[in-house]
Amino acid sequence: MTQAPVPLLLRALAGETLPRPPVWFMRQAGRSLPEYRELRTRAKDFIAFCHDPQMAAEATLQPMRRFPFDAAIVFADILLIPRALGQDVWFEAGEGPRLGELPPVETLAAQVEASTARLAAIGETLSLVRGQLEPERALIGFAGGPWTVATYMIEGRGSDRSAARTFAYQHPQTLDRLLEVLVDSTARYLVMQAKAGAQALKIFESWAEGLAEDVFERIVVGPHKAIVEKVRGAGVTAPFIGFPRGAGALVETYAAQVPVEGVALDTQAPFALGRRLQAQGKTIQGALDNLLLRAGGPALDARVEAYLEAWGQGPYIFNLGHGILPDTPIEHIARVVERITRG
Amino acid sequence: MTQAPVPLLLRALAGETLPRPPVWFMRQAGRSLPEYRELRTRAKDFIAFCHDPQMAAEATLQPMRRFPFDAAIVFADILLIPRALGQDVWFEAGEGPRLGELPPVETLAAQVEASTARLAAIGETLSLVRGQLEPERALIGFAGGPWTVATYMIEGRGSDRSAARTFAYQHPQTLDRLLEVLVDSTARYLVMQAKAGAQALKIFESWAEGLAEDVFERIVVGPHKAIVEKVRGAGVTAPFIGFPRGAGALVETYAAQVPVEGVALDTQAPFALGRRLQAQGKTIQGALDNLLLRAGGPALDARVEAYLEAWGQGPYIFNLGHGILPDTPIEHIARVVERITRG
Repeated sequence: MTQAPVPLLLRALAGETLPRPPVWFMRQAGRSLPEYRELRTRAKDFIAFCHDPQMAAEATLQPMRRFPFDAAIVFADILLIPRALGQDVWFEAGEGPRLGELPPVETLAAQVEASTARLAAIGETLSLVRGQLEPERALIGFAGGPWTVATYMIEGRGSDRSAARTFAYQHPQTLDRLLEVLVDSTARYLVMQAKAGAQALKIFESWAEGLAEDVFERIVVGPHKAIVEKVRGAGVTAPFIGFPRGAGALVETYAAQVPVEGVALDTQAPFALGRRLQAQGKTIQGALDNLLLRAGGPALDARVEAYLEAWGQGPYIFNLGHGILPDTPIEHIARVVERITRG
Repeated sequence: MTQAPVPLLLRALAGETLPRPPVWFMRQAGRSLPEYRELRTRAKDFIAFCHDPQMAAEATLQPMRRFPFDAAIVFADILLIPRALGQDVWFEAGEGPRLGELPPVETLAAQVEASTARLAAIGETLSLVRGQLEPERALIGFAGGPWTVATYMIEGRGSDRSAARTFAYQHPQTLDRLLEVLVDSTARYLVMQAKAGAQALKIFESWAEGLAEDVFERIVVGPHKAIVEKVRGAGVTAPFIGFPRGAGALVETYAAQVPVEGVALDTQAPFALGRRLQAQGKTIQGALDNLLLRAGGPALDARVEAYLEAWGQGPYIFNLGHGILPDTPIEHIARVVERITRG
């Protein structure tokens, strides 16, 4: 009896430099695939879709059938947590998320334990996917970073975050308490995901940009550290990937202080910065421009080679710097994934 | 006969560490001042206002009367250059700039020499201001960075720049030629400004964010280097401040490659990064959060002290990380400027 191979993604996150990096793409499941757009019409709304384990598992697996990705990421949304905590969340077609008024923070806090039960469907999605995914392909669970989730909760929609950043200055204690509640519910949610089959856990801090260093340490670094420690404290050993998108030079502060195994880098991360993180023992992930993936052509091919050369000598996961854009030609995705998996 | 004192701003840009840093604020002139809003009603539109030396000089001087700023910056706009090159530019009230269709690049190129003459009013503004400003206060001229100006020329308005960034991938030769034309017209414009009285020159690359390293080097670093070299080649000795806003860790690439005396840092620049630039011989400027200036309170006071402590030991110009927001209370501006000038 032979043992199941350890998925490449997990080997990379354990610090191994491999003959070729594992590859997956942010938003590999979803609107860029026609089969997803067809599937999506069967649910009454996006929230219902995310909470239907059969449909969400199918969406998770669709890109895995089309492309030889080394990892699947559970189909879900970072705003399921505020909804599970009792804030209204809905999606306006073509406009993105909308949230109802922010409840008092202690009202949210009282819902933390219940929130994990309300997210049980995402655990079922993970179990379904894990049952169907080949053992050499990893399954990733995720949650939004507390600050990013808080910006939506405070502003009620996607925005330039200036109202949330002003809130951080004007109501520091309320914000800190809200982040505490989000840390707690997010840690429980990730523990549940790991128990349901997630082999790696990613924290998407999509709006880490534009923050002053002291604010960044307070509202991004601290909460991420707390989440990782809580999840570890619950006995979960799945590795973490932290993604402080837009943090610029502060990504080094993040990597030095947050005990994640992997750091996802965005498009503007210099090669030298990635190599410094590798030298400090981090596995890096990223950072191809999603606009270049969509544009294609010789510039795309050249940039893929440049990443392999710059970062392939240390532990590295090939990915984009941001999610796949909906109108990205499928042949561009196929071409890059083929190049990486060819080795 | 005593010699006129060298303005603090110029001493800082010459690399001097001073008992207290000079201070000025981006957008110190303009909508945050009631006297500006009154003045503005006298011109038929924003472009006409910028091209009226009397009114533009008055707008430049208004904040100098209210606050003990160490430098004035000429009231103008980064989109005066595309207009001078023959592209339509107008401002929709409350919505920002709009530009007509991008003319063929060679049509723009044929207008480079004429464009400087069409910007003569800005030279007159500088002369008027220099005549009225105390000799110990410096006068700054400026232009937009070629990439930032190109994003407006390509997209026709303020945007997330994804169309311009896609253009950079799909039409690299056209973009490079457009940047060349902008480098040429911008260098001539800055030479004219220096001859008219500008004692320091700033390049505002407001949209340097989100660019991959290779693209950043090609479309930001290269053109800035070319501008500085052309202006120096024309015999101008005024120091430069480069502002690659949002460049994150790439600001170090910028500082290493562009021969500017000063590097303006945005809100998210870590203290350690600023100190590294100082150690490399650059004067740094920045980087107080404009949202914090607006919010005020003890957090503002504490952050001002933190900047003085972190950066005051090397050549430093106190400023914001982005422009003053229109609804910033005047007493917050006064309080910070008073603190800095008190020493």
